[in-house]
Amino acid sequence: MEVLRAIEPDRDPRLLVGWETADDAGVYLLDESTALVQTVDFFTPVVDEPFVYGAVAAANALSDVYAMGGRPITALAVCGFPSGALEIDVLGEIFRGGRSKMQEAGVVLLGGHTVRDAELKFGYAVTGTVNPDRLWRNSGAQSGDWLVLTKPLGTGIITTGVKFGRTPGEVLQPAVDSMLQLNRDWVTFLAEREVHAATDVTGFGLLGHAYELAQASGVSLEIDPLKVPLLPGVTELIREGLLPGGIKANRKWLDHKVDWTNLEESQAIALLDPQTSGGLFLSVPKSVAEAMQKQSKQAAIIGRARAKQEYSIRFTPGAINQG
Amino acid sequence: MEVLRAIEPDRDPRLLVGWETADDAGVYLLDESTALVQTVDFFTPVVDEPFVYGAVAAANALSDVYAMGGRPITALAVCGFPSGALEIDVLGEIFRGGRSKMQEAGVVLLGGHTVRDAELKFGYAVTGTVNPDRLWRNSGAQSGDWLVLTKPLGTGIITTGVKFGRTPGEVLQPAVDSMLQLNRDWVTFLAEREVHAATDVTGFGLLGHAYELAQASGVSLEIDPLKVPLLPGVTELIREGLLPGGIKANRKWLDHKVDWTNLEESQAIALLDPQTSGGLFLSVPKSVAEAMQKQSKQAAIIGRARAKQEYSIRFTPGAINQG
Repeated sequence: MEVLRAIEPDRDPRLLVGWETADDAGVYLLDESTALVQTVDFFTPVVDEPFVYGAVAAANALSDVYAMGGRPITALAVCGFPSGALEIDVLGEIFRGGRSKMQEAGVVLLGGHTVRDAELKFGYAVTGTVNPDRLWRNSGAQSGDWLVLTKPLGTGIITTGVKFGRTPGEVLQPAVDSMLQLNRDWVTFLAEREVHAATDVTGFGLLGHAYELAQASGVSLEIDPLKVPLLPGVTELIREGLLPGGIKANRKWLDHKVDWTNLEESQAIALLDPQTSGGLFLSVPKSVAEAMQKQSKQAAIIGRARAKQEYSIRFTPGAINQG
Repeated sequence: MEVLRAIEPDRDPRLLVGWETADDAGVYLLDESTALVQTVDFFTPVVDEPFVYGAVAAANALSDVYAMGGRPITALAVCGFPSGALEIDVLGEIFRGGRSKMQEAGVVLLGGHTVRDAELKFGYAVTGTVNPDRLWRNSGAQSGDWLVLTKPLGTGIITTGVKFGRTPGEVLQPAVDSMLQLNRDWVTFLAEREVHAATDVTGFGLLGHAYELAQASGVSLEIDPLKVPLLPGVTELIREGLLPGGIKANRKWLDHKVDWTNLEESQAIALLDPQTSGGLFLSVPKSVAEAMQKQSKQAAIIGRARAKQEYSIRFTPGAINQG
């Protein structure tokens, strides 16, 4: 969060991860074997159905805990509600949708807070636990690592298309299914495997979160744009030009941090698209990347980590096969 | 929170306190000796100075953890910000004010989330720990207990008076000082003493929270209205009639739950006043009540818990000295 960057993080030995590395969640050492992973996220509706909106908000908030290698345990609901403009039944559906996803994740809802708001907002503060020795920071990527992305991109473009009535139902459904999917199974699969760095892809788009990971780790990333998976229909929506505002903001922020050579305009747009409940983006040894790909075809190997160069990110078709 | 009442709490043996008893925070059993106490609260400004607003929001959010007998350890900031209408410097001051209070409480800030909002809102999701055997619920009051209140009432009336320009500076200052005061010292003082039930006084006013405690405990409360301490200047502001809307809402809710006999109208208003960062309201053995009063003159003995009667709360001048 922007404003926090102006404030010096607390100096406390129990604070394992603060906000200085722009990681996914804060981490606090409770005792030798347990650290708390905590995050809060809420936002305006991304889909029309209240139940699905609640469930997506839950999956999205949980994702920040998974992205640290943690297991979520509790949640508090956070809601802004335009009373008068909206039926209370709608709110109940949102809460029930969120609840169903929390239960799927084995998370106990402890309570929450609702305030009057001009527009509807919903989300959660989520707490998880992690063994401090198994914590996935975004700062541990090593030169030579393989980069893996676990969900295709494009949820921002697709849900923006819905607002303009331009997203066909057969394009929306896979995007919704993707947002509803918990990142939990990868945490389970990788529990005993070597993970050097991890993050999840959300508001800053793949390139924004990849940049934060590169910065925090002191490496550069080489991405093969042709290997980055997109949701079906995304390329067509990009051609129509109805894009989320976040793409422009992300591009402006990353302008001089990324070497845009070898990246087509439509690829750049997809890689800058703000995601809701996006996939994990991991920097791992080759053997782990290959094991992930063998486990599920959803795991896409999209590039390599390299020794730090002038730009934090550059694009090389065929990057994966080089040394 | 209203909407949660329509939803059945999770059935999980680790959920020690959900929202069914309208307690101050949710409690989750982490292991045999440690439970997490979690709460989220944020609200629109109650004072003009951004730094003080942030600090009051922090003290208020922390209070829910203290009210369960817990020690707060981490916090996440939650903020709604009207960008354009407000300088970003103001936001920095709010965060710094909150930060100073969190540091005083020994709490580590782990991060936060800011969203665009039509009006400014600020607060925290706070996590604390408590020994599950030493958890203060609002449901353990016993007939014969003594009722203790640790802060005078009237912050709602005084801050509403500020909005109408009717609160003199010498009336505002003690109210601000009271809101800034952490309830921590009472948790320390009572750590080894017997506490049957506890809550803190916030939006539902003393009577609302006292009613929740009586309900959850299956007792009735007998309060001596003359013993309930008010902040200086509150009675005068009540006479002027500029009152927070919450008083009316609280009265409507409690109308048939309280026996209003023996309570003057101006007393009723004060006892219904929604508090920000209010005091603790405790149900304890006589010896503990007396020890508290000896410890600080801020601790006011205001009544007794009795066997359940028709009304959950009634008023008896001299109630404290009877049996």
